[in-house]
Amino acid sequence: MKNILVLGAGRSATSLIQYLLSNAIECDWKVIVADLDLQLAQNKIGLSDRGEAVSFHMDDQMARNSLISQADVVISMLPPHLHVLVAEDCLTYSAHLLTASYLNAEMKLMNVRAHEANLLFMNEMGLDPGIDHMSAMQMIAGIEKTGNQITGFRSYTGGLISPEDDDNPWHYKITWNPRNVVLAGQTTARFRSQGLIKYLPYQQLFRNAELIEVPGVGDFEMYPNRDSLPYADIYGLQKVKTLIRGTLRHVGFCRGWAALVSLGLTDDQVIIDGGMFDTYRALLKAFLPGGDRPITEQLADRLGVNSLEIDSRIMWLFDSSPLPSKKATMAEFLQDLLIEKLALKTIDKDMVVMHHVIEYSNSDGDWSQSSSMVQRGVSSVDTAMAKLVGLPLAICTKLLLQDQISIRGVCIPIHPEVYNPVLRELSQMGVRFSEQTIRL
Amino acid sequence: MKNILVLGAGRSATSLIQYLLSNAIECDWKVIVADLDLQLAQNKIGLSDRGEAVSFHMDDQMARNSLISQADVVISMLPPHLHVLVAEDCLTYSAHLLTASYLNAEMKLMNVRAHEANLLFMNEMGLDPGIDHMSAMQMIAGIEKTGNQITGFRSYTGGLISPEDDDNPWHYKITWNPRNVVLAGQTTARFRSQGLIKYLPYQQLFRNAELIEVPGVGDFEMYPNRDSLPYADIYGLQKVKTLIRGTLRHVGFCRGWAALVSLGLTDDQVIIDGGMFDTYRALLKAFLPGGDRPITEQLADRLGVNSLEIDSRIMWLFDSSPLPSKKATMAEFLQDLLIEKLALKTIDKDMVVMHHVIEYSNSDGDWSQSSSMVQRGVSSVDTAMAKLVGLPLAICTKLLLQDQISIRGVCIPIHPEVYNPVLRELSQMGVRFSEQTIRL
Repeated sequence: MKNILVLGAGRSATSLIQYLLSNAIECDWKVIVADLDLQLAQNKIGLSDRGEAVSFHMDDQMARNSLISQADVVISMLPPHLHVLVAEDCLTYSAHLLTASYLNAEMKLMNVRAHEANLLFMNEMGLDPGIDHMSAMQMIAGIEKTGNQITGFRSYTGGLISPEDDDNPWHYKITWNPRNVVLAGQTTARFRSQGLIKYLPYQQLFRNAELIEVPGVGDFEMYPNRDSLPYADIYGLQKVKTLIRGTLRHVGFCRGWAALVSLGLTDDQVIIDGGMFDTYRALLKAFLPGGDRPITEQLADRLGVNSLEIDSRIMWLFDSSPLPSKKATMAEFLQDLLIEKLALKTIDKDMVVMHHVIEYSNSDGDWSQSSSMVQRGVSSVDTAMAKLVGLPLAICTKLLLQDQISIRGVCIPIHPEVYNPVLRELSQMGVRFSEQTIRL
Repeated sequence: MKNILVLGAGRSATSLIQYLLSNAIECDWKVIVADLDLQLAQNKIGLSDRGEAVSFHMDDQMARNSLISQADVVISMLPPHLHVLVAEDCLTYSAHLLTASYLNAEMKLMNVRAHEANLLFMNEMGLDPGIDHMSAMQMIAGIEKTGNQITGFRSYTGGLISPEDDDNPWHYKITWNPRNVVLAGQTTARFRSQGLIKYLPYQQLFRNAELIEVPGVGDFEMYPNRDSLPYADIYGLQKVKTLIRGTLRHVGFCRGWAALVSLGLTDDQVIIDGGMFDTYRALLKAFLPGGDRPITEQLADRLGVNSLEIDSRIMWLFDSSPLPSKKATMAEFLQDLLIEKLALKTIDKDMVVMHHVIEYSNSDGDWSQSSSMVQRGVSSVDTAMAKLVGLPLAICTKLLLQDQISIRGVCIPIHPEVYNPVLRELSQMGVRFSEQTIRL
C-alpha cells in the first residue's frame, strides 16, 4: 500500500481528496489529510476507510517529520512560503512532492538534491499555473510537429462568476484568495508585443484592459500578468514576436478597478486607524478632495472622467456600513469589503475560462489557432476553481505512483509524459478544450 | 580648546565648515573634517590652521572611535542610516551629536541614555527639516502669546532654480539628493483639511498640486509631504482644522512629473536590462502602447490628455542619447537622466523658498498671517541649499559649546532656547522672514 499525504484541507483540496479516495481501493492507497482544523480534515475524508484525518500544525516539527516519513507522495496545499520546509522533509524521508504554487528560487535550488534522491518535486500543477502550461505546451507541440513556425503566443485565464449568478455591479465574486484579488497587478507588467518589449505599470494596467473574444462564450477584459517574458524560454518560444499571459475579467470590471487604483484605495503601505472613520463611506471621502461638492463631482475630479457607472460601483462598495476600528492598510479594509460584498452565495456557480491564441506561419500563409476551455462550478463549495486546481495534482499523483512518470527533480508540467496523460484524463472528466483555426 | 568633528565633507557641509573655521580662533575650537575623500576634506579646510582634514571610512571602527573620543561635538553629514552608529560612539565617548536628518525611531530610543550622559542629540537641524520647524514654532509662539486661537497651519518649502537661470522645460534643476527627487512622494500623503483627514496617493499627488502665491516672489505649485498629522502634536496644534506641510515647485513641474508617474517612469521595483534598449527614447517607447502611431498620440492615449507641453518635456528628457547597458530600475535610469539634463551649471544660482501661513481667530475676527523667506545661491557650489542646511547646524554647535543651550536628550529644534538665538543669528546673516497679516 502507498501512502499519500495531503497537507491542508481547505476549499481547493476538496476535489483533490475526493479523487484520491475514489481511486484508493483500486490503486491500494491510503490518503492522510492533515490540517490545523481536524474537523475540516474529517469532513473532507467522510466515511472512507482509506482516508485518515490528522490534526497538524506546521510548527510541530516532530509531528511533521512523523507524517512525512510515512508518505510516498506529499501534496502541499499550504501557503506557498511553507513548501520549501516540506520539501526538506521530503528529501530526508524520501517522498515525492506536488504543489499548485509558482516555482520559486528557493525550490529551484533543490533540483540537484531531488535528482540525487530520485524524487519528483512537481510545482505549478494546478489550474493557473498548471492546466495553462499543459494545454499550451500540448498545443505548441501539435503546431510545431508539422513544421509550422510560431510567431505569436497569448494565454489568458480567468476565475469568474458564471453569468447567470452575476448579480452585482462589479460582475465579479471572490472564488480564490481575496488578498491576491486586492493586490493583483501591483508590480509593473512586462510582455512582448509585435517584436517589442512593453512595460505596463500598475496605474495603467486596469485602464488599458484589452477586449478578448472567447469563441462561444463572449467578450472578456484582459490585463497582462506580471512578467510574461520568462515563458519564451520555458515554452521554447524564443522567436515569437508577441508573448503575453493575462487574466480575464467580465466586461466592466477593469475600468472600475482602475478607478479604485487611481483613488489609492488598493494601497497596502500606509496604516490607517479605522477608529477615526465611522463608515466605509467616510473612509472613501478621506481619499476625495472634499468641500461641499457632491461626491460624484469629487470622484470626477480625481478620476479625470465623469462616469455614473463607475461612481455607482464605488458607492455600492463603500456604503454606510460601519468600519472596523482596527488599524489596517487601505488594501486590507478593501479586502474585508470584498469578502462581504462579493461573496459567493451557496447556490452560486463560478466559471473558469482559459483561452490560448497561437499565431503561426507556413508555406500556405499565416494562421491563428485558438484553444478555449470553459468550466462552471456546481455551488459555492464545489467550485470549478477548486476542481481545476485539485484534479491535475490528483491525476499526476496517480501517474507517479503507477510509475508512468519517469522525470525527477524540481519540475513544472511542461513535459509530454506529464501533460499528455493528465490532459487526457481531464478530458475524460469533461475538462475539454475546443480549438478553432483561422487564416490571417 | 574644544574639538568639533564634522563627518562628511560633501556639498552641504561647505557653509557649515566655513562658519566653524571663521569662529574657531575667537571661540578656541579645533575643527576636524573627516571624509572618505581626503582631498575633498582638505579643500573644505583650506589653509586654516584651526582645521584638520582626515581620511575616514565608516566601517573602520577603530578610526571612528579614535576620532569621536577626541570630539566635544560631532556633526554627522553622513547618510541618515549611519547616524545611529555614530550616536552609539557619542554615548561611549561623551560627545554631543547634531544632524540635519529626520529623527527616526532608532534614534528616539536613545533619549534616556543621552539624558543620563548629559548629552544633546539634536536632529532635524538643517533647512527642511530645521529652519522650517524653528520659524514655524517662533511664529506660533508669537501668535499664541497674545491669546489668539490658531485654526489652520500650512508650511511649504522648495529647493528650486532661481528664475533667471531657469532654462529647461521642467523649470527645475537638481540642488539636493537626486535619488530623493526621483522617489519623492511615493508614499500616500496624509494631512488635515477643513477638519477632515485626507489621503492623497502617489498617483494623485502631482496631478493635484495646488497653486500657492508667495508674496513678492510669485506663484508656485505645492504638493503635500508624506505625513503632516504628527506635527499636530510636535507643534502643539492639536485643535487646528487645517494642517499641511508641502513642497514647492515652479509652475508646470508637477503636471509634467504627474505624467512621468502615470507612465510608470518612476518605478523603483522592476529591474530593466538596459542592454535591451539602444537609447532613452527606445526605453520610453517600451512604456507606450506602440504600433505605427506618432509618439504624441501614444502619450495622449496613456495620459488621458493631449498636451504638447507635457509631450515636449518628456521627449526633451528621453532623447536619443544612448542608454547605459546596466541593469537598473526605471527610477535609477531616470535619475541618471536628471543628473545629466537638470544639472546646475557653474554659474547657476539656486533658490530656496519657505512659506508659512497660519490662520487664527480672536475677538476681533479671523486672520491669516504669512511668513516667507527667499534665499538665492551664488553659484553651483555655493548654493542657498547648502548654506541653509549648514548654518543652523553651525550656529547650534556654537551655542551649545558656549553653554547657551541647556536641553539634553534626543531633540528636534522646537524649543525657544534653541530657535530664538539660531533664528536671530540667521537673520543677522541675511536669512530673514517677511511677515504679512490679512483679515479673512
